[in-house]
Amino acid sequence: MTQKPLNGIRVIDLTRVLAGPFCTMVLKDLGAEVVKVETPGTGDDARHFGPFLDAGQEKSAYFMSINAGKKSVTVNLKDPAGQEVLADLIRRADVLVENFRPGVMERLGFSDARVRLLNPEIVFASVSGFGQTGPDAKKPAYDVIIQGLSGLMSITGTEDGRTVRVGASISDITAGLYSAIGILAALFRRSQSGGGARLDIAMLDATVSVLENAIARGQLSDKPPGPRGTAHPSITPFSAFKTKDAEMIVAAGNDRLFVTLCHAIEMPALASDDRFKTNRLRTDNFSELRPLLEAAFPRETTDFWIEKLTPLGIPCARINNVHDLFDAAQLRARNMLVPMEDVPGFKVTGSPIKFMAEPDIERKAAAPGLGEHSREVLVQVLGYAEEKLAMLEKNGVIS
Amino acid sequence: MTQKPLNGIRVIDLTRVLAGPFCTMVLKDLGAEVVKVETPGTGDDARHFGPFLDAGQEKSAYFMSINAGKKSVTVNLKDPAGQEVLADLIRRADVLVENFRPGVMERLGFSDARVRLLNPEIVFASVSGFGQTGPDAKKPAYDVIIQGLSGLMSITGTEDGRTVRVGASISDITAGLYSAIGILAALFRRSQSGGGARLDIAMLDATVSVLENAIARGQLSDKPPGPRGTAHPSITPFSAFKTKDAEMIVAAGNDRLFVTLCHAIEMPALASDDRFKTNRLRTDNFSELRPLLEAAFPRETTDFWIEKLTPLGIPCARINNVHDLFDAAQLRARNMLVPMEDVPGFKVTGSPIKFMAEPDIERKAAAPGLGEHSREVLVQVLGYAEEKLAMLEKNGVIS
Repeated sequence: MTQKPLNGIRVIDLTRVLAGPFCTMVLKDLGAEVVKVETPGTGDDARHFGPFLDAGQEKSAYFMSINAGKKSVTVNLKDPAGQEVLADLIRRADVLVENFRPGVMERLGFSDARVRLLNPEIVFASVSGFGQTGPDAKKPAYDVIIQGLSGLMSITGTEDGRTVRVGASISDITAGLYSAIGILAALFRRSQSGGGARLDIAMLDATVSVLENAIARGQLSDKPPGPRGTAHPSITPFSAFKTKDAEMIVAAGNDRLFVTLCHAIEMPALASDDRFKTNRLRTDNFSELRPLLEAAFPRETTDFWIEKLTPLGIPCARINNVHDLFDAAQLRARNMLVPMEDVPGFKVTGSPIKFMAEPDIERKAAAPGLGEHSREVLVQVLGYAEEKLAMLEKNGVIS
Repeated sequence: MTQKPLNGIRVIDLTRVLAGPFCTMVLKDLGAEVVKVETPGTGDDARHFGPFLDAGQEKSAYFMSINAGKKSVTVNLKDPAGQEVLADLIRRADVLVENFRPGVMERLGFSDARVRLLNPEIVFASVSGFGQTGPDAKKPAYDVIIQGLSGLMSITGTEDGRTVRVGASISDITAGLYSAIGILAALFRRSQSGGGARLDIAMLDATVSVLENAIARGQLSDKPPGPRGTAHPSITPFSAFKTKDAEMIVAAGNDRLFVTLCHAIEMPALASDDRFKTNRLRTDNFSELRPLLEAAFPRETTDFWIEKLTPLGIPCARINNVHDLFDAAQLRARNMLVPMEDVPGFKVTGSPIKFMAEPDIERKAAAPGLGEHSREVLVQVLGYAEEKLAMLEKNGVIS
């Protein structure tokens, strides 16, 4: 049987909340062993974030959905004996990931130099808001702050200029994805020529790197690009329209499809209107075209239009809400919403990284209870004896 | 000197526009050799997308920004002789990436089985809108369609329910990032135990996988989550506010910071108001809290508030537009907007994957002219003789 790509790779995971845990979730889904090192008593902050699966607010659905299948070891990293436990874990790991504020690892006794001394072959990745360098390195960062600073918020919003946040924490998540890419690239290099790596990933850098088109447009115009509602900056019509019962996307992206669309909505005169003959003209004159299209679609339901436009080859789609996703045949066929072993009825996202002809993830393992694997890892990975464990427990170093 | 992680890796890149090219841009930035195989005469569609750097619309800034440093070989893949050229390239490659509509590779004579026969060790990745499987596999997909279908659009918009598109093509880009992750994981596995891989990445899967929090919230509520403007679903205040001259983000995410904020904005009574004592209460009663805060910030400018709140430890930030990014000291310190070798004054995004103590990308190489490297690659990589090249050129197979 084909092995999962990261079988045999051990990740020591000091991360909390989202960017770092998202990265190690991707590594776990690819087959790595992920050992979360958490603070005794409280653990990953996300354990205390809603929504909760129980009235007692012990089981955070948020935490479970990004920590499925990881192991949890509780170690007090402020205690020198706890720091020794972490040093031992680092000696036996392939990857170390942390997302503390820059400077915290040094204060805990784990500078770059010390980590390299403990394990010259380790891939050591830091994920932070602004990165380990530069004037803003030590500033606090949250997703909404980075969405605002990166320019992403300035291009996301309504056409009359009400900017909004991307509804998902995309700055955290893209930083997590880039971290996974950097870690995998470093593991590959190590396999070829040996040697570890020291990675420094910033949420701000990650978010700027996905603006793409807007960076080019911004440089070539005196006016910075602004939000455009659901519309595309250079393709028209390519946006959402209200129908009788909802909203839908219509993406008639070239001249031929536009003509087809005009006939389908029974407005043939539009097809030969000089103002709308080319994509360039339609984009330039969208303020005139839009009200005409906006008058057409509310005559019928979204289902009607999708059934009419799809066979004509006009790309179109409903705007699904999160409940709709659980009924979507395509997502079911792709195992994109999979059950968790320990929570009947609750689903989490599957892995979007599909290896054809290899087993896909059909179900996710439970997220760990706080410190659930402390003994297992300390005995099996570090070879600690019972007396040592008992002493660490007695002193509150582990729990 | 440390080698770049992917030095020595050759990627044959059949992709066009964004999702695939974004993936191979990441691989190129990590040191891979990326050979774009393009259609003679027209090439990657993105070569014809604005904005353009010249009046003649020959130099697409959009194309250049995601294809810097790649090589371009023009091959007519509809001609059997061109298919033989591609077969030869596949024999000498580590990675093959394509983002045609599912079925096109088979029609061109490159089924999974054929590709594996040509090169059993190749990592063959397909990027598509819906994936290679499932009822919607062959439907056309554009970023806005996937943003609508994935649920992302349903949670992005104003609080009164006007949904918008994320201003960047985030469905394309996350699919590109997941493709890079899958390819790197497969290359690592090959280095450990040999064998290629067949990857199937879908924009829809990728976008659903970044919804995260919303998937959990959606399952635990009768009402699907909707858009919330700039606000956070469970932390308050954590959103944008209008100031005298602009808008800014204020993220006073815990009770202590909220009290500090109330004094800073000279509304001390709010700090002891029973309706706002805890984060839970502030979130539940945000409709009452918001107008009070909205009255405070317009009294002063964004700069005033940032200078006042930052030393108090209250996370806050301006909302930058794309022009502002070019003045940002942090982005300059991080090499996140770097010049292109061949276009004076024009910048593209740097790599967010920073390896500390290793050279960063300070400048990007030119994007290739269409077919610029046809001869170089066919001679140096494939060892074709001059007579063979001349015949292929004469027959229009390459150009």
